[in-house]
Amino acid sequence: MFNFSIEATDGNARAGCFTTPHGELKTPVFAPVGTQATVKSLTPKQLDEIGATLVLANTYHLFLRPGDERIARLGGLHRFMNWEKPILTDSGGFQVFSLAQINQIDDDGVTFKSHIDGSFQRLTPEKSITIQENLGADIIMAFDQCAHPYDREVIEQAMQRTHTWAERCIYAKKRLDQALFGIVQGGVFEDLRRKSAEFIASLNLPGNAVGGLSVGETKEEMFRVLDLTNEILPKNKPRYLMGVGTPYDIIQGVARGIDFFDCVLPTRLARHTTALRRKDRLNLVNAAFAEDPRPIDETCECYTCQNFSRAYLRHLILAKEMLASTLLSIHNVYTLVRLTHEIRNAIYDQSFHLILEEFSSP
Amino acid sequence: MFNFSIEATDGNARAGCFTTPHGELKTPVFAPVGTQATVKSLTPKQLDEIGATLVLANTYHLFLRPGDERIARLGGLHRFMNWEKPILTDSGGFQVFSLAQINQIDDDGVTFKSHIDGSFQRLTPEKSITIQENLGADIIMAFDQCAHPYDREVIEQAMQRTHTWAERCIYAKKRLDQALFGIVQGGVFEDLRRKSAEFIASLNLPGNAVGGLSVGETKEEMFRVLDLTNEILPKNKPRYLMGVGTPYDIIQGVARGIDFFDCVLPTRLARHTTALRRKDRLNLVNAAFAEDPRPIDETCECYTCQNFSRAYLRHLILAKEMLASTLLSIHNVYTLVRLTHEIRNAIYDQSFHLILEEFSSP
Repeated sequence: MFNFSIEATDGNARAGCFTTPHGELKTPVFAPVGTQATVKSLTPKQLDEIGATLVLANTYHLFLRPGDERIARLGGLHRFMNWEKPILTDSGGFQVFSLAQINQIDDDGVTFKSHIDGSFQRLTPEKSITIQENLGADIIMAFDQCAHPYDREVIEQAMQRTHTWAERCIYAKKRLDQALFGIVQGGVFEDLRRKSAEFIASLNLPGNAVGGLSVGETKEEMFRVLDLTNEILPKNKPRYLMGVGTPYDIIQGVARGIDFFDCVLPTRLARHTTALRRKDRLNLVNAAFAEDPRPIDETCECYTCQNFSRAYLRHLILAKEMLASTLLSIHNVYTLVRLTHEIRNAIYDQSFHLILEEFSSP
Repeated sequence: MFNFSIEATDGNARAGCFTTPHGELKTPVFAPVGTQATVKSLTPKQLDEIGATLVLANTYHLFLRPGDERIARLGGLHRFMNWEKPILTDSGGFQVFSLAQINQIDDDGVTFKSHIDGSFQRLTPEKSITIQENLGADIIMAFDQCAHPYDREVIEQAMQRTHTWAERCIYAKKRLDQALFGIVQGGVFEDLRRKSAEFIASLNLPGNAVGGLSVGETKEEMFRVLDLTNEILPKNKPRYLMGVGTPYDIIQGVARGIDFFDCVLPTRLARHTTALRRKDRLNLVNAAFAEDPRPIDETCECYTCQNFSRAYLRHLILAKEMLASTLLSIHNVYTLVRLTHEIRNAIYDQSFHLILEEFSSP
């Protein structure tokens, strides 16, 4: 059910195809984030027109509201949010550590205080899998512990737990129509990352992810970790770099053999009045755009760029109109989806090095 | 350029067609309101898919921000907001009286304090026409004075001004590709309304509007005013009931010979979590909908009803997701557009009385 075929390579970069119960994912693929079962301000129809194929939803948020069991009774997450293409759910681990108000971590799991109503909740590997099975995404993630990248003692303990928890997730998993991906941890420590990659690779899961990056370390540290991790993770399985999504980082990730990306960046920037472009950003609040009749990007074929001027977008922003977020989100998500298509074509043409050279700095 | 043909009648109700430089308007027609050059939370593409043909934009708001001259330099309102079908702009009169912080009215015009930046601004009939010519809508409105419906002295003075100002608007108007509609005032006083309708009719404009209603008077008063006004306003010109838009009011208006309607109701209700249905409303915050798999309206063919459950909409509302407003706005505007289609068909079939009987009370 979950087959990954590599269709072309250029150096370590790969163009592939991952099959899921809800259709094929052509890789490299960028997943916009639909935290609360909606990619903020976009309809599924708009997402589909943008060319998005994979959407990420957050287990932590949906567990707390409206509840995974409720979503299951309503037919699962695909039907609930009306997204017929593949969905990936994270494990909830990252959000417990970054969003919950209080948390107590032990070897069995995590107790935390809900950011919504202050109630105490508990997540364990088994509970995370139960929730993700109720949600019914095509790709689900092993419950992991993310920790500050520089504290070796904490990182090592978190990595050990992540390994034990990955085994417990495999054991807990019942549904056959979901692919479970493991997550490599280990902070910025090369020996720990190597150990973690070897362990996760040994689980022989249908895909592997690199977690705990883009959380404070430098770009050089992130790329060094990716280099050594991807040397160990099996080539014939998709590799997923979690939470990463600037154009530069996507290109650098692909160059190191990454296939899947997700990030809130395009929709978050949109809500902060900023348009993402291939090589720069425009903050449309800027008075320079007040009478600018040009689209955000004259080479862009998204609905926003085909129909609206910078002047109009600035007007919507100043007038605090919701449509500003929608139109900027359409453009920003399209920009990253289009970049992955461009990368894919370049890998087929053996010209990926030209993109890499163009993006030699962030 | 502006031709109104009546294609069918049933009692006083008419099915017609009004031609404009941006296409035909099949009447009765309901115009959603795009106050700030956007129908809140909807793209023009979504509006078009809903079947909307006419959009109202507010002269007062666009004059203050981004400025009518700026919109003119950017190619006019149609291009600015990317709406290729007909647009109607109001005169700014109503907003000056309802929104501006301070206003001084004299026979020449109105001085008011902007609700945006507190600056003093002035509108006169000539200025209103200049702004509306800069915006470039297909249908523009004469500058009128709206007043509290029960104060006879104020109402009479406001009516007299409205008449003088209508003549000044006709004199000031230069563009030939815009149809200027006059506005009948006179509060709830039959003699004043009669006098006003006779005066406005005598101007022989391509369309006539009934203003100053739905501002505090009872339904019975509103309908009585409509009855006597529409007896005087010419049958061969479209009649526009300004600011009115519940299903009941639309049906009662059509029964009295009204052809055009506009209202913020569907988009405002959407932002307040309420779905408009043919004969009732659903407040989707209600816990009863928490696991309700049904669409808002099982007979509705809008994008929202075809794809999303009440449970999902309630989840979006509780999670404060922008998509809630978008999906509810799609449904609510569609409900009124669909109602006008149903009415039109009934007039053709001579069965409009059945709709009237069904809607015998609000």
